[in-house]
Amino acid sequence: MLTLEKFREAAAVLQDVILDTGLIYSKHFTQQTENNVWFKPENMQLTGAYKIRGALYKVSRLSSEQRERGLITASAGNHAQGLGFASQYYHAKATIVMPETTPLVKVNNTKAYGVQVVLSGNIYDDAYTHAIQLAKENNYEFVHPFNDLDIATGQGTLAFEILRLLPETDVILVPVGGGGLIAGIAALAKTLKPAITIIGVEPSGAACMKMSLKEGKITSLHHVETIADGVAVRTPGDIIFPYVQKFVDDIITVDDKKLVDVFLDLMESHKMIVENAGLLSAAALKYLEVKNKNVVALLSGGNMDVITISSLVQHGLRNRGRIFTFSVRLPDRPGELYRISGIIARERGNIIELRHNQFVDINRNSDKGTELVVTLEAFGHEHKNTIMTALSQEGYAANVVP
Amino acid sequence: MLTLEKFREAAAVLQDVILDTGLIYSKHFTQQTENNVWFKPENMQLTGAYKIRGALYKVSRLSSEQRERGLITASAGNHAQGLGFASQYYHAKATIVMPETTPLVKVNNTKAYGVQVVLSGNIYDDAYTHAIQLAKENNYEFVHPFNDLDIATGQGTLAFEILRLLPETDVILVPVGGGGLIAGIAALAKTLKPAITIIGVEPSGAACMKMSLKEGKITSLHHVETIADGVAVRTPGDIIFPYVQKFVDDIITVDDKKLVDVFLDLMESHKMIVENAGLLSAAALKYLEVKNKNVVALLSGGNMDVITISSLVQHGLRNRGRIFTFSVRLPDRPGELYRISGIIARERGNIIELRHNQFVDINRNSDKGTELVVTLEAFGHEHKNTIMTALSQEGYAANVVP
Repeated sequence: MLTLEKFREAAAVLQDVILDTGLIYSKHFTQQTENNVWFKPENMQLTGAYKIRGALYKVSRLSSEQRERGLITASAGNHAQGLGFASQYYHAKATIVMPETTPLVKVNNTKAYGVQVVLSGNIYDDAYTHAIQLAKENNYEFVHPFNDLDIATGQGTLAFEILRLLPETDVILVPVGGGGLIAGIAALAKTLKPAITIIGVEPSGAACMKMSLKEGKITSLHHVETIADGVAVRTPGDIIFPYVQKFVDDIITVDDKKLVDVFLDLMESHKMIVENAGLLSAAALKYLEVKNKNVVALLSGGNMDVITISSLVQHGLRNRGRIFTFSVRLPDRPGELYRISGIIARERGNIIELRHNQFVDINRNSDKGTELVVTLEAFGHEHKNTIMTALSQEGYAANVVP
Repeated sequence: MLTLEKFREAAAVLQDVILDTGLIYSKHFTQQTENNVWFKPENMQLTGAYKIRGALYKVSRLSSEQRERGLITASAGNHAQGLGFASQYYHAKATIVMPETTPLVKVNNTKAYGVQVVLSGNIYDDAYTHAIQLAKENNYEFVHPFNDLDIATGQGTLAFEILRLLPETDVILVPVGGGGLIAGIAALAKTLKPAITIIGVEPSGAACMKMSLKEGKITSLHHVETIADGVAVRTPGDIIFPYVQKFVDDIITVDDKKLVDVFLDLMESHKMIVENAGLLSAAALKYLEVKNKNVVALLSGGNMDVITISSLVQHGLRNRGRIFTFSVRLPDRPGELYRISGIIARERGNIIELRHNQFVDINRNSDKGTELVVTLEAFGHEHKNTIMTALSQEGYAANVVP
């Protein structure tokens, strides 16, 4: 059972270990929505995610024999680092099974906590099966990432902090994967303040909790597809599901494309990196049906490879019209590039990349014999349209390349 | 004069307006250096920088007549937004002169505070001259970005917050441009805690304060060159200089290339965006000569265009060997790309971009008739070297492209 007593015990365990990241008032998101918006930045927590909470509480409750025998889990993400940290903190022996496809950087980050890493299988399900098998063979304690009441209790301690920092909180928005985080937060928050509203947020492509709540029973998705890899879960946890049914008020779903925009918003307005799963709550702010409420959006994690960040930034800039590419067919004769670049310069477009392909038409004398593909930096969609209109007015049939 | 009474008055003015961003303990930088490291994240302050402090205090001290007549400054950066915010807050009329080359995004961000923006000149000095002239013509109050005791007083309030949050602070590291920030912090911190050490940090390419302290008098640099545009100042302020002479213990200088590395470190380990000028203090941590001290590094700002962030990330990844490019000359015959890509695949390099140029040699039958330029994602320098060695062992004379 999730009980107030255990939440208190977990909070006492965590108190001297984890960081007090505070709440961040968001002028930007407050202006964008009609609510007062704060963020709880667990992306800035130790290990870069809230997962350290459940892991620390779980390991704190194991006997010294269990810690010596060892614990095991399967994870390529934040749970691996959370459990790694907790195992190191409590001097417990731990094994983390990761898919063979896990980037070496993540493998090394996990190993840095002094835990053993086993690579197995191509996808998470294979790693999971292998971890269960190793647990049986070696009598290891298997620590499930979300379907475990101790884990949910640890994660739920966030409700203490949110309500201590902002007792007048009306709504908490929580990213949902398997359901451990929201089960803990909802159970505790409703105990402390029954009038509070707890809303979960899932990516449209992996909304197993919304589906399960609708069906009234645990329901698996056939297929999961989202860039929010931290919550790409097919089946909610059956142990924590009753708490979600009882305490969670609603689930909002968000498309991947919106996540890219909000990623840039958080970077620009709050100077923070938040991973895709972690910013579901921020992305859901504009879908809230309430007004003038005090809303806390939980940013659940910030662990994202720098190359992924780089790619997200590029996509985000294109979504905003800050970068765009057009192609245009030109007669293959001297002076055309000069004319085009004159138009771009006049309209203050800044060329990032240019490709000039001769011989795209079999007829060199065609007035479309050459192709020019230009990537530009612009100030946004309006500026992009101005540049495209200018090209068109000068007689060039240029097309934006999607 | 910088007095405790005025620092207290400034703190009272700021109290209900600005954010309490707290201190962030850095496990990563503590492990990297031999000191206990905290960050004061003013990048997460309202307007994205500490500049709001001085601006608010300055405008609070103007009479209502002065506010109605108007104030003016020249800035393309954080001071513009700080003064914009303060003017809006106190309903003061304000004009910000920016160089004509200022990106439209920054112009619009500044206009968003309801201030008038005038574009003038190609460089900052031209804008400055124009602002002084407008101030005279219109009887506007000119608000200098750093050479002003009220401004320095406002910035100095940071010392109250740092010493309240961590009374056992031994050293504060402060980015230095014109000197207003460090003059205020050093004067107040030494008053509150005489034993504290205050160290300034300048980019090697714009170290006017270090030079002036060495010469014992205000000294101008002939030439300034750094990516830390927020502190690219040629001459320290003469009004605040005596306080820097009196209260600052030392100045450390940092090369631009180090800034790129630390930018990525802060992104990965703390999920924060810090602008180049703002992270000088973090970059200086490894040059401290003390050990086992409690060090607070002030991250002074986080305002950076997303396209600049994108470019910094790319450079940072190359510095770390996470991305690299090699070129290799091949015989112009079928099967060569197949062989090369086989080697790369075997060594787990991930191809990002590939350019295949036929006809680079006049002799098609040369064994170097074709050039292949490959950009790869790798796990770091070691992995990069493994891939290059593998290519060499298979007989390819590949070269890393810088």
